[in-house]
Amino acid sequence: MHRSRLYGLFIDTPRDEAPAAAAFWSAALGVAARPVPGEEQFIALAGAHPALTVDVQAVDDAPRYHVDIETDDGAAETARLTGLGAVEVARWLDCHILRAPGGHLLCVVPIHTDPEFFAAHARTWP
Amino acid sequence: MHRSRLYGLFIDTPRDEAPAAAAFWSAALGVAARPVPGEEQFIALAGAHPALTVDVQAVDDAPRYHVDIETDDGAAETARLTGLGAVEVARWLDCHILRAPGGHLLCVVPIHTDPEFFAAHARTWP
Repeated sequence: MHRSRLYGLFIDTPRDEAPAAAAFWSAALGVAARPVPGEEQFIALAGAHPALTVDVQAVDDAPRYHVDIETDDGAAETARLTGLGAVEVARWLDCHILRAPGGHLLCVVPIHTDPEFFAAHARTWP
Repeated sequence: MHRSRLYGLFIDTPRDEAPAAAAFWSAALGVAARPVPGEEQFIALAGAHPALTVDVQAVDDAPRYHVDIETDDGAAETARLTGLGAVEVARWLDCHILRAPGGHLLCVVPIHTDPEFFAAHARTWP
């Protein structure tokens, strides 16, 4: 048995345009834009949404959004989602990067939110 | 003075693949997938997140996500966001479709959530 929940929205932006994107989304959503210490490609927009993490991420790729699913068991959650038709396209540290049926990117990541919030909102899978 | 908040995540999917995408996301997030009456290009994933509307949308375009910002004044919110650097690229009914600095699509839409929830979570702009 393991648990997971839709955790984050990432505004993946070509590296050169990431500062402009962070400035826009910061002003658009009314929150500060702050680089994540140790992972400076992520610019956190803390407070942009009451129950969803929103970051700008600088990438070497075309602009896109992706979503993160946080889980207490990355291998089990990845197996569950690939069993539903997603394809694992990459690994990055302890994140599994999948492409869903229909073509969208999602990442399976360890629990990032407060454990009590996770416990209250995650779904349990057999 | 007007108000707005980040309201929705839309999984825009090429029309032919939208049923497979809806089936995947429904199972992945543990919720039903139901067409929105009168707007059958939208397949609602109600309950996918406690405070964010999540839909699959069938589109005649490449797969992408987009976000919606709901507001009590679409013209004022669109003017605010274009003033921050976004470009209005289309209109669809009472929705303003914008491209943000960095290249991401967002839509400005009328209030869709419960008015009390909107009032509790929206930001106020001068």
